Amino acid sequence: MSVITIERKVLEKNDQVAAGNRRMFAERGIFVLNLVSSPGSGKTSILEKTFEDLRDAMKMAVIEGDVQTDLDAQRVSRYGVPVVQIVTLGGCHLEANLVRDALEKLDLTGVELLFIENVGNLVCPSGYDLGEAMKVVVLSTTEGDDKPLKYPAMIRNSSVLLINKIDLIPYVPCDLDTLRNNALKINPGLKIFEISCVTGEGISAWCDWLKKKETPAR
Amino acid sequence: MSVITIERKVLEKNDQVAAGNRRMFAERGIFVLNLVSSPGSGKTSILEKTFEDLRDAMKMAVIEGDVQTDLDAQRVSRYGVPVVQIVTLGGCHLEANLVRDALEKLDLTGVELLFIENVGNLVCPSGYDLGEAMKVVVLSTTEGDDKPLKYPAMIRNSSVLLINKIDLIPYVPCDLDTLRNNALKINPGLKIFEISCVTGEGISAWCDWLKKKETPAR
Repeated sequence: MSVITIERKVLEKNDQVAAGNRRMFAERGIFVLNLVSSPGSGKTSILEKTFEDLRDAMKMAVIEGDVQTDLDAQRVSRYGVPVVQIVTLGGCHLEANLVRDALEKLDLTGVELLFIENVGNLVCPSGYDLGEAMKVVVLSTTEGDDKPLKYPAMIRNSSVLLINKIDLIPYVPCDLDTLRNNALKINPGLKIFEISCVTGEGISAWCDWLKKKETPAR
Repeated sequence: MSVITIERKVLEKNDQVAAGNRRMFAERGIFVLNLVSSPGSGKTSILEKTFEDLRDAMKMAVIEGDVQTDLDAQRVSRYGVPVVQIVTLGGCHLEANLVRDALEKLDLTGVELLFIENVGNLVCPSGYDLGEAMKVVVLSTTEGDDKPLKYPAMIRNSSVLLINKIDLIPYVPCDLDTLRNNALKINPGLKIFEISCVTGEGISAWCDWLKKKETPAR
């Protein structure tokens, strides 16, 4: 029982810090997305494609979260986007205080859009508010069409679903209609984009939507 | 600090229960593998292929671990293999006591080989001993060749790496040599099999190795 109590306290503390982050983002007019997915679903590739498409339209920045290495920060820094890497050293999710500390190291002057790329984990990050406008969950077609049913909390707590790697549909046992319907069964309000970072399909629709900076109804 | 202490106590308690499970497996002569990976890497498909190959050679059983649904248990039960589903209701990994309780519901008569399919999560299950002979980690080619560096604990704590979905190599930005080398950099003793559940490539090598029931040196 004591563990549950402490977990609740940890979450309460996290929510307080997240609320502070959210106030700061609102004051500065920064639209913040918390990008979540399994390892290897393509979060970093999606950021790369998004930077290519949007870099002349608005200033962006990134907080990268990884269990180990700064490989992702290296990748996105090639696009001239301000980036801070958080290495969790085994930690399975980002928390609001890690984001608050990372923000101190990030030059946010003129930044309109901030991506927080969470640790690759479809379970634990779902419960942690970082102060974002919304969570954007990525599922790739190679993971199969049953994943929304098997990992419902992340789907329920996200506002947008990016179905990535649609170029691989001919080669994998994944039915797009089933995947879409399974996701909407869990969260009927989910906004869905189907994209491929290899062919570029769907990227401009996603980026056009980003420009509007609208938070879907929850 | 109190949280860390409690986490340590949770792990100590888990290790005690895992030791009990391990004794029971040894007494009954059951070879137990703890199958770990990201969501959608193909753990259940690998089990299906393994059952097809080995069902005339030895009696097998499965404990399925999922955050939600019994979809995986339904899939493997088609092969006539005894199966118990653990639904963690949000929990991000299996623990030894869940496995101990599941064992009570499983008919182990004559079973030589028991698979524990863990929750799809490349981070949290790495620290939890369930009493298995070894962890078998699955990485699929679609996840990219950098994953061993980004999720080192799971690679370090596993004895076998199954590189799955090698049929998709022509279509994905994954170099098999790089993936293999990255994994061996973290864990030089890792036994590696490259497989495809679509073409069946590599499945017989994996199953031949399973028949030997040998625990690689750690």
